Amino acid sequence: MLDTIFKPASLALVGVSKVPGKVGYSVLKNVIEGGYAGKVYPVNPSAQEILGVKIYPDIKSIPDTVELAVFMIPPKAIIESLKDCAQKKVKYAVVISAGFKEVGAEGALLEKQLKEQADIYGIHLVGPNCLGVIDTKSKLNASFSADMPLGGDISILSQSGALLTAILDWALANDVGFSKFISLGNKADLNEADFIEYLSDDPDTKVILGYIEGVSDGRAFIDKAYKASRKKPVILIKAGGTKVGARASSSHTGTLAGSDAAFEAAFKQSGVIRAHTIEELFDIGKLLEAQPLPAEGGLAIVTNAGGPGIITADATERAGIRLAHLSDDSILELKKVLPPSAAFGNPFDIIGDALADRYKAALDIISKDRDVSGMIVLLTPQDMTEIDKTAQSVVDITTHTKKTILAAFMGGKNVNSGIKVLSNGRVPNYIFPESAVKAYRTVLDYKDWLGKPEKTYRKYEVDISKVKNNLNTVQASGRSSLVDVEAREIVGLYGFKTPMSMLAHTVEEAKTYASTAGYPLVMKIASPDILHKTDVGGVVVGIKDEQELEMSFSTITNNAKKFMPSARIWGVVIQQLLTSGTETIVGMHMDPNFGPLVMFGLGGIYVEILKDVSFRVAPVSEAEAQEMIREIRSYPLLQGIRGEKKRDIDAIADAILRVSQLVTDNPEIVELDINPMLVKEEGAGAIAVDARISIKH
Amino acid sequence: MLDTIFKPASLALVGVSKVPGKVGYSVLKNVIEGGYAGKVYPVNPSAQEILGVKIYPDIKSIPDTVELAVFMIPPKAIIESLKDCAQKKVKYAVVISAGFKEVGAEGALLEKQLKEQADIYGIHLVGPNCLGVIDTKSKLNASFSADMPLGGDISILSQSGALLTAILDWALANDVGFSKFISLGNKADLNEADFIEYLSDDPDTKVILGYIEGVSDGRAFIDKAYKASRKKPVILIKAGGTKVGARASSSHTGTLAGSDAAFEAAFKQSGVIRAHTIEELFDIGKLLEAQPLPAEGGLAIVTNAGGPGIITADATERAGIRLAHLSDDSILELKKVLPPSAAFGNPFDIIGDALADRYKAALDIISKDRDVSGMIVLLTPQDMTEIDKTAQSVVDITTHTKKTILAAFMGGKNVNSGIKVLSNGRVPNYIFPESAVKAYRTVLDYKDWLGKPEKTYRKYEVDISKVKNNLNTVQASGRSSLVDVEAREIVGLYGFKTPMSMLAHTVEEAKTYASTAGYPLVMKIASPDILHKTDVGGVVVGIKDEQELEMSFSTITNNAKKFMPSARIWGVVIQQLLTSGTETIVGMHMDPNFGPLVMFGLGGIYVEILKDVSFRVAPVSEAEAQEMIREIRSYPLLQGIRGEKKRDIDAIADAILRVSQLVTDNPEIVELDINPMLVKEEGAGAIAVDARISIKH
Repeated sequence: MLDTIFKPASLALVGVSKVPGKVGYSVLKNVIEGGYAGKVYPVNPSAQEILGVKIYPDIKSIPDTVELAVFMIPPKAIIESLKDCAQKKVKYAVVISAGFKEVGAEGALLEKQLKEQADIYGIHLVGPNCLGVIDTKSKLNASFSADMPLGGDISILSQSGALLTAILDWALANDVGFSKFISLGNKADLNEADFIEYLSDDPDTKVILGYIEGVSDGRAFIDKAYKASRKKPVILIKAGGTKVGARASSSHTGTLAGSDAAFEAAFKQSGVIRAHTIEELFDIGKLLEAQPLPAEGGLAIVTNAGGPGIITADATERAGIRLAHLSDDSILELKKVLPPSAAFGNPFDIIGDALADRYKAALDIISKDRDVSGMIVLLTPQDMTEIDKTAQSVVDITTHTKKTILAAFMGGKNVNSGIKVLSNGRVPNYIFPESAVKAYRTVLDYKDWLGKPEKTYRKYEVDISKVKNNLNTVQASGRSSLVDVEAREIVGLYGFKTPMSMLAHTVEEAKTYASTAGYPLVMKIASPDILHKTDVGGVVVGIKDEQELEMSFSTITNNAKKFMPSARIWGVVIQQLLTSGTETIVGMHMDPNFGPLVMFGLGGIYVEILKDVSFRVAPVSEAEAQEMIREIRSYPLLQGIRGEKKRDIDAIADAILRVSQLVTDNPEIVELDINPMLVKEEGAGAIAVDARISIKH
Repeated sequence: MLDTIFKPASLALVGVSKVPGKVGYSVLKNVIEGGYAGKVYPVNPSAQEILGVKIYPDIKSIPDTVELAVFMIPPKAIIESLKDCAQKKVKYAVVISAGFKEVGAEGALLEKQLKEQADIYGIHLVGPNCLGVIDTKSKLNASFSADMPLGGDISILSQSGALLTAILDWALANDVGFSKFISLGNKADLNEADFIEYLSDDPDTKVILGYIEGVSDGRAFIDKAYKASRKKPVILIKAGGTKVGARASSSHTGTLAGSDAAFEAAFKQSGVIRAHTIEELFDIGKLLEAQPLPAEGGLAIVTNAGGPGIITADATERAGIRLAHLSDDSILELKKVLPPSAAFGNPFDIIGDALADRYKAALDIISKDRDVSGMIVLLTPQDMTEIDKTAQSVVDITTHTKKTILAAFMGGKNVNSGIKVLSNGRVPNYIFPESAVKAYRTVLDYKDWLGKPEKTYRKYEVDISKVKNNLNTVQASGRSSLVDVEAREIVGLYGFKTPMSMLAHTVEEAKTYASTAGYPLVMKIASPDILHKTDVGGVVVGIKDEQELEMSFSTITNNAKKFMPSARIWGVVIQQLLTSGTETIVGMHMDPNFGPLVMFGLGGIYVEILKDVSFRVAPVSEAEAQEMIREIRSYPLLQGIRGEKKRDIDAIADAILRVSQLVTDNPEIVELDINPMLVKEEGAGAIAVDARISIKH
């Protein structure tokens, strides 16, 4: 239980120093001055007492068991001392020391050894190369941070220690408090997912914030973050790595995916709120920390000035937030307390001479209206404005309502004291109202997400042994790509309809097939060595009769022999020519962090030019498959436009789920494109015209 | 010359009060305490002295000419006193008093009278219903603002007085200074364009910021803002009115336009930088005020921590900003001054223990590299970080370089003193580096805009009298829509190729025409009363021979008679069936603020579903027409994809310019759609297949 890291009954600080400025001094000082109540055993072989505390020469000489060890000694010394820790029953260690993976190959080796030794002795690690951890509730500041954060209900984890110091410094100036500060460091052992899981059950944490540059285990991350998000909001910044997306790939899905698409999908699937800037992280975090989630209804804007009211209304419109429509009764009530020149629409402009009482009266009436889910209270510091008193009125309202209240007291010099009153009263303030609106939008989305039912997955009956057998055959032949017949057979085994087709070794076989299948037909060269068939003149489309078929057979085989004399020619694939239906693409690309990433989009220019596609990490749930379809901009095309009939959207969802199962069942598949998949009108299904599959080699 | 408003030699304050809290008291106090050097004549019939200043009973008794009058008396009294002002040679008046247009019909009438009287006496007005004006250079605070702003090079104009008070309060807490504060009020006379024009020539103003809810005269706005933007940056927030866009319209262009599209286009065409939030307004403004525009090259990021460096690099990538590639020589130099564990890529991570000296040494080398156009200097407050000293180092660098320098000293409590040092040294600081990057992006765009050549317009020879004649005929017939033959003739007169077509009154005429034009053909009912021809079975497409032509003629005319017995039937229009070419649409919609707004997009689903269109206010310049084409997301389709040839992009630009001239020449046209316009491959031109024109009725 990671609780021990934050509330250890006893604690060894290994490598304390008597030299101010040294990390070993700062950590000791922080632990002592923080007011931590447990037993503290500082260790340093060459000191007796520092800051009035007895120092132990080594871990062994600590006369007690130790629940947590904090290391500030060089890497090798840490590795050597783990055995002593084990004897003292240490279960957790925070490794602040640097000199590991971040310094290159040698350090990486040390980090590997550290983790191995820790595993042997059953010790879990935070770090190495981290700032440490802080818990404002237990008053443990086991970090070398210069300051202790204010207390609060937000916990934050970060892969960058320096960012934590900046955030702490900012938070102290802005009255933002924290429950726990966790510096993840190199994540040799405990990672972001472990702490998200822990914090989701931590009664001292209401909101989980984080900064990550990557995930240690994509699958574990999605699972743990999903469970956590169902309990409390998880808001993360994911930085770095967007350029990875630019790497070459032979499939559409691979080209379009990039690692950010995978993170975007993983966050959506796990309910993690993604913040794109540090400012956004806290704009959202402080709202979720301080205020209840909005009920059903619209937003009300109350202001003492027209311009800021308009700015706020604009922002709500951009964010797709509905403004509340007050009942006639509420408006009548408002007319009793507001001057006639007030604006009784929404925004409610209670006019520049509004004193605190008028704010209070208006807010009271508006907060009671049934259609109001939340309120943004704007204040500009005009001549007679009672800033602090108005702030107190807003705070008072929160005690009488369960609705979400945000403030935008705009200004600095004069309004700061009011903002302080709001902050103490747990009303988040935003200097600029646009930020308040954006935060509210995100909270509405989180509420929607909480309202979603638990995920359900579909399971298709598949002749898996046949699939494996086919894949093994390809692998055994040393190939990493399946030829089209092979790929279509695999997707066929997963329930996809494919065009009637056959491999004709001779022109006679081709003719026999054509006489049953009927025209028009497509013919393609069948060779394991020819990937780009069109380039060698190996494809003929729209064969209308037997004469054309004979001619095409010889053209294709001759072309292949001419352009690629060394290629093995298996014959010619003959296939029904299908043209009716909307072209779509369903694909999968193996993401290095999250594994199989499933893509959907409309085919042709939609995927090539407009890059109008959606992604989810497999396994994809039933609801997620439907979301993938509705998420693309060109979705209206599937609903039927210009008199066309609606397309078979359920068939697309089914296809996505079948691909999801296919790639989950067969992790040796690293890339897959079903392109085009022709989708017919509602109820008439879809057909996988072409498929490409690549496997590990 | 509006200079008189800000630097009057003599000034009458009409309606001063001895009661603290009253506007008349605040303004007098502000003028006196602000330290304004000119002569001040306060007017109040019932006071002798207020705040130690002699009071005059009325304007007439002022023993001097008066350059500026500031009114704080009721509306009617102002109107009555304008004559006295004229006698005192008053040329400008600031009307602070409310009670005009903003209070309804009666006030609107008063405002009309005020403007009429002012015109009679040659007096220009600021306001009414405004906060007043402030000039920190002349030390004139002719407003009832509670505070005087700090001095600076930013001037700001605002249609919301309360917003100015909020901005001022915020600015005082954030060390942001101003040259002029202008509260526009109801803009009865002087408007945003007038002040933008004035400020563009004001030597005390380096950057013009503004908040507007609308423009008084769209054309004047574009002209004056364009000229101003060529001299110095104009950054505006445009709030409100987005819902206007939702109003019903019969044309594609009208449906898609909405008033925000017109503002967006007008801002682009005039070089105005659009800020979407107040925060953005100042993020951009303070950079342009304090730092030079970037030279050619990339951006360098210097940091003492990895995480924030990654965050910043991410933001540059999202913003499409290139990171600088330092020369080998620069890297060698850097290696001499940075520890080996530093990161020598870009971001340059000079490591957590960096002191001010290391920052200075690194910045000095990096700023001298040829590929560096600007630098963002990040600082997180780590254990040994020298915050103030590092800030001073950054400031020192600015004295040795002409490159753009931004700082992101991240934090609050401890870094605030450093931020103050930066601010005093004219280095803009951003607590969150993402904001710095966004501001830099905008400044790069502004620089690009400055580099554009002056606009050029194309003038086509047109038989304008024939056009007018045709339009008059339609107007005379009481119609507000042209039938398709009429519309095509108009666009034909403006040089558009249209499909060969004729109006056949009889089936014999139709046959004769078809024998020369050739098949396939389209036939449509020709009636001034039938707008939606397809709905009444009045269209047949793809007529292949004479037999089909005969049949279609009778079908169409019979259908029309059956469904609309009262419709006048002129006959049937026969037209070449054109299918080859890319479907595009060029249209115009009359915007209430800016007049004719020209639209371009690809036809069909691109316009209907993806709403992938671009707008410019007519007249459209040659470069703007090209921009309109390149701006749409589906532009790559015109460049030729999937083996298709490039489309005739110059023909599209030509079409846009012709439409621009058409709608400028003929302001009676309120709506126009050329849809589809088929664009052929490069050099082969475009053809206006169908046109719809609506005129004023």
